Amino acid sequence: MGPAAPTTGTLAADDILAFAAELAEAARPIARAYFRTPLDIVTKADESPVTLADRAIEARLRGLIEARFPDHGIFGEEMGVKPGTAPGNGPVWVIDPIDGTKSFVTGLPLFGTLIAFLDGGVPLVGLIDMPALGERWTGRPGQALFGAEPARSSGCRSLSAARFFTTAPDGFIGEDAARYRRLSAATALRRFGGDCYAYGLLASGHCDLIAETGLQPYDYMALVPVIRAAGGVVTDWAGADLTLGSDGRVLAAASPELHAQALAILRE
Amino acid sequence: MGPAAPTTGTLAADDILAFAAELAEAARPIARAYFRTPLDIVTKADESPVTLADRAIEARLRGLIEARFPDHGIFGEEMGVKPGTAPGNGPVWVIDPIDGTKSFVTGLPLFGTLIAFLDGGVPLVGLIDMPALGERWTGRPGQALFGAEPARSSGCRSLSAARFFTTAPDGFIGEDAARYRRLSAATALRRFGGDCYAYGLLASGHCDLIAETGLQPYDYMALVPVIRAAGGVVTDWAGADLTLGSDGRVLAAASPELHAQALAILRE
Repeated sequence: MGPAAPTTGTLAADDILAFAAELAEAARPIARAYFRTPLDIVTKADESPVTLADRAIEARLRGLIEARFPDHGIFGEEMGVKPGTAPGNGPVWVIDPIDGTKSFVTGLPLFGTLIAFLDGGVPLVGLIDMPALGERWTGRPGQALFGAEPARSSGCRSLSAARFFTTAPDGFIGEDAARYRRLSAATALRRFGGDCYAYGLLASGHCDLIAETGLQPYDYMALVPVIRAAGGVVTDWAGADLTLGSDGRVLAAASPELHAQALAILRE
Repeated sequence: MGPAAPTTGTLAADDILAFAAELAEAARPIARAYFRTPLDIVTKADESPVTLADRAIEARLRGLIEARFPDHGIFGEEMGVKPGTAPGNGPVWVIDPIDGTKSFVTGLPLFGTLIAFLDGGVPLVGLIDMPALGERWTGRPGQALFGAEPARSSGCRSLSAARFFTTAPDGFIGEDAARYRRLSAATALRRFGGDCYAYGLLASGHCDLIAETGLQPYDYMALVPVIRAAGGVVTDWAGADLTLGSDGRVLAAASPELHAQALAILRE
């Protein structure tokens, strides 16, 4: 039950989505050119590897956004925040040039480019592009697509039947590790290492539940419009909507019922 | 330093390899037809999901092998062992129609078809085919290929620089779990969920180290000729060659030096 006529000022969600697709098209050849070639891998303070491709893509996307929408804010993984010129909480593009850098540097084609458009702090349009696989999910209120086809979550309502994804079990710390273990044990099947691709698979009905911690806004904002329009639910671990100020815990489920069951375990 | 002129009776390794590629070509359309379609998933006693695709592919490959080499033995995941007619330890095909069934049933294109040819119990030819990705690794003594291009391991010699893969950390039990944690902590980067694809990535230089337990001969036999011909080392956790009677612990490394370092930790 999204807004009936999503707009952002004079911009319709479909216009925003078309431009996001242009951005993804610009990112793909850069990602592909660097993938599976020897790279200088710089280790950042948070230990996640980051590549030349990451920086090259973000620079390109920022240039395109600035040329088209000079007033919009930009929040990218590599180059930080450029505030928008609109008063208050105006339009912002949130981008992750390469989500799944561990996949990228180990030759796995599961890395993606994430592009979100927020207005008033709310993610209105989201795009998950998989450059090496040539696959793409898009979402805006009322429409989730995998390529040109509608994407629909499985509708799975039962934890015991749920196919559960998380990036890596060793990413959970302290109490979160215990919560993760309880949730994981209640599911039918556990799979690791999906990064953003797992959310696309959830939107298309191939997996049912995802729980992660330590995510940044550029990791999760693009996923929200896709999951929601596909019939899924995505929130933080308290059940609240994801915002730029969320704590990085993300829970996505194929149905409201499944989300509620998982949330109950994570809150114990 | 493999045998200079690999033969099996009157069959050259290249002839065997060409037939293995025919088998993989026959398997691909079956796997693709079932991938990402709703399936009845039967849960076997060992909890690994198995699909209709698994059985359809194995039936097809067995038929092709029996038509071409009626005397050869066949050992498949789904339909067990058909002894060969040669006296003693003669030619045997070892096949896994869908390796990575968890990937298959969650829409991840990382599942593969594994085909190995053994003579005298020794894996002479191996093939790793990725039906959804359209990628293939092959190996026989003296030649490892990724598609038509030579495949070469990274040659990484240092645990602290090694990109480490394992299927899932929760697969390690008892002492093995402690061994896994020590080894994992010594590496540069950990990645989960690769199944057979990780071994292909190792053969192509994209990952450096893999440790797994609980594997069956159809899970590991096809990997051996690929890894070895690519310059890697693959053994059990005691450093012994993998045979049909191995205990299911597999260690693969991009260089003899890296293999020795990992083996020392697993033996502690």
